[in-house]
Amino acid sequence: MTRRLHLNAFLMNTGHHEASWRLPESDPYAHVDLAHYVGLARIAERGTFDSLFLADGPQLWNDIAQRPSGALEPLTLLTALATATEHIGLIATASTSYNSPYNLARRFASLDIVSGGRAGWNIVTTAGAEAARNFGLDAEPAHAERYARAAEFLDVALKLWDSWEDDAIVGDKAAGVWGDDAKIHPPRHKGRYFSVAGALNVPRTPQGYPLLVQAGSSEDGKAFAARYAEAVFTAQQTLADAQAFYADLKSRTAAAGRDPEHIKVLPGIVPVIGSTEAEARANEQVLEDHIVPAHGLARLERLLQLKPGTLELDRQLPADLPSEDAVEGAKSRYTLIVQLARRERLTVRRLIGRLGGGRGHLTFAGTPEQVADAIGTWFTQGAADGFNIMPAVLPSGLETFVEQVVPILRARGLLRTEYGPRRTLRDRYGLPRPANQYALRENALV
Amino acid sequence: MTRRLHLNAFLMNTGHHEASWRLPESDPYAHVDLAHYVGLARIAERGTFDSLFLADGPQLWNDIAQRPSGALEPLTLLTALATATEHIGLIATASTSYNSPYNLARRFASLDIVSGGRAGWNIVTTAGAEAARNFGLDAEPAHAERYARAAEFLDVALKLWDSWEDDAIVGDKAAGVWGDDAKIHPPRHKGRYFSVAGALNVPRTPQGYPLLVQAGSSEDGKAFAARYAEAVFTAQQTLADAQAFYADLKSRTAAAGRDPEHIKVLPGIVPVIGSTEAEARANEQVLEDHIVPAHGLARLERLLQLKPGTLELDRQLPADLPSEDAVEGAKSRYTLIVQLARRERLTVRRLIGRLGGGRGHLTFAGTPEQVADAIGTWFTQGAADGFNIMPAVLPSGLETFVEQVVPILRARGLLRTEYGPRRTLRDRYGLPRPANQYALRENALV
Repeated sequence: MTRRLHLNAFLMNTGHHEASWRLPESDPYAHVDLAHYVGLARIAERGTFDSLFLADGPQLWNDIAQRPSGALEPLTLLTALATATEHIGLIATASTSYNSPYNLARRFASLDIVSGGRAGWNIVTTAGAEAARNFGLDAEPAHAERYARAAEFLDVALKLWDSWEDDAIVGDKAAGVWGDDAKIHPPRHKGRYFSVAGALNVPRTPQGYPLLVQAGSSEDGKAFAARYAEAVFTAQQTLADAQAFYADLKSRTAAAGRDPEHIKVLPGIVPVIGSTEAEARANEQVLEDHIVPAHGLARLERLLQLKPGTLELDRQLPADLPSEDAVEGAKSRYTLIVQLARRERLTVRRLIGRLGGGRGHLTFAGTPEQVADAIGTWFTQGAADGFNIMPAVLPSGLETFVEQVVPILRARGLLRTEYGPRRTLRDRYGLPRPANQYALRENALV
Repeated sequence: MTRRLHLNAFLMNTGHHEASWRLPESDPYAHVDLAHYVGLARIAERGTFDSLFLADGPQLWNDIAQRPSGALEPLTLLTALATATEHIGLIATASTSYNSPYNLARRFASLDIVSGGRAGWNIVTTAGAEAARNFGLDAEPAHAERYARAAEFLDVALKLWDSWEDDAIVGDKAAGVWGDDAKIHPPRHKGRYFSVAGALNVPRTPQGYPLLVQAGSSEDGKAFAARYAEAVFTAQQTLADAQAFYADLKSRTAAAGRDPEHIKVLPGIVPVIGSTEAEARANEQVLEDHIVPAHGLARLERLLQLKPGTLELDRQLPADLPSEDAVEGAKSRYTLIVQLARRERLTVRRLIGRLGGGRGHLTFAGTPEQVADAIGTWFTQGAADGFNIMPAVLPSGLETFVEQVVPILRARGLLRTEYGPRRTLRDRYGLPRPANQYALRENALV
């Protein structure tokens, strides 16, 4: 079978560029407008994307003055989108640090059922004290602690999703027997972080469980991805870095005893498209001109975990920044930004401009052909199984991509031309439906 | 303005009668079939019901062999129904014992936005060790403890829902100012059960916050309802009991400093309708004949918190049952069932038959006129502001009610004939949109 690109639409209110909301076309209330998101989902479906995706964190950032803040809770929004779409996968971010496995496993199972097998979970451990303080803690748990909890959370969730065998429902009306107790497997889990005794109160779902997605690229993050993830979102600035990451993750996955084909690597790309190179660069400049420099400065300081007032707009980053080991959360993003600034000797002002669109993801300004070339190169040269498309402005950036880049990718045989008969999100990504761990165990005994 | 009935459709897979799933018309997979629920919601909307409602508990009961078990998570299902309906209110049960305020407040806010102001929350404290053991506890917290946590949960949730003033979003593109920091009010709550520092990451919603519903009729439950609830579901077997409950709750609400008009009392009723009285009774008998006696016995023992094997089918309840004070959870339901059995000197077998449809709610078998008469009597005689309609069989029982009873209620001027222009769930129940506690405080200072 021809290897094909997997495309994920990373949706974010008026777009990924921090100043996108200030453009004339943008609606400052888009973040809470269901119709806005329905429109985006339908555009992505016209582009035969595999999935769409919502980032999330359970806190309100303190920059409400500067740009749209807050968002509809992702599983709620995706449930509404499930009813407005037919094919596209629906990936929600949810935190293992600030949820309980029983509730979250049930919600993803419910979305998987309601959407006919299109649910995905972007598993995050949630960095930052702001979130911790909304859940009874004074400070965020340490990075390693968060990942240890995440691993136990996943083990419990997988037990819950398997707690009904696929044929647990009998429905024998004459005998008055609805279900088969022998096919129900309460986890009876007692661990370091969680005790969960009973079976889930939702049957096994079309996909068995949601597609498991992960986006942390720290050491802990990569180890976690190798063990659990079926798709990985990553920020990579150069082909060489992306190739190294790709090879590393595939080999870690094989080392964990899994088929490396069963983990799909999707770097993020912010395509800024123009009919000529000059037009694309001009479009990029319009966005950069809308950034309020003081806001960008404050955000960069937060991202690098520096005290306010550390950075100066027209100088480069200070030479004595801490190493990745010393920062908590978003470790790999930290390193990526510092390396980008050093490699290109960027002033803080230029760095803010470069980060304004993608927060560390690759911004690529060019013609539709150039964007398709870049995607094709990364895809065929061992750097990507697909891409996380992060339009700078929404909906127009997604529309332009689907109307101008997608046809080129299709003509080159890199992208499906229609969805075809298979329905689940795992089908789209070419992944098998997972077997039930308890049914497997029984069969092994036979 | 004419006082009108409020009708709520209490939806439960194939119906409220425990044997309903065994009827030829019933689908054993209805509990996970979105189309089934969409159909029910649309029938209720044809009947101009105020709302529909889903009960819930975060556990799988151990009677999966006996009847449909498990359910789609209610907020997920209601979000999907929001997109399939236009007018009807959407009330989800969620537990204050097994959720965190930040997450749950956000989810209800999101549903309220997605549905255009139609969200309601049936606040429960969740009795039973089964649920507790899914959330790291060995046993359920004591009744009073659960209610103390519920009260603090509500206080935090109300702060979160008010943490954005209605005009916190400025959207000034030219100045680059999106929101007004002065209109954001982080709760900074530190209490016995919860610490929640930050503002919600969702703006204030169409209703301000979801309609608050409550269904516990214990002393703790009534005190809680008087303080917070805007609608109350209750199980009442006789007009006199219902009148006493109604008067008591209204006077408690007034004593709590609230307008007694702002709490709507809705007793549950299981209407079993026939074109003649005899046909209605025959329909009831068909259902009763489908009960497996041993299953009913086990369930009754669990409901009364008795050891398995305590009850005998053809004898009355033992004389030495414990008093309500000695039972944990579902206290008032316990008393109601014991009183019903004693009052009518029912054998355990007959009691199981009587409870099979409504689990303690009033089952009323009769012609459409008789059902309308009973509803009208309770409504006009100080026993109810409306009813929680609990069809024994779904969808047919709801369809019959809407086709045969609703027209009579409309002809008598008791029920609206169309929804009219006002849109939110609070509008339907004749309740005002709540003011923002922080905005009020500021205005008081001026």
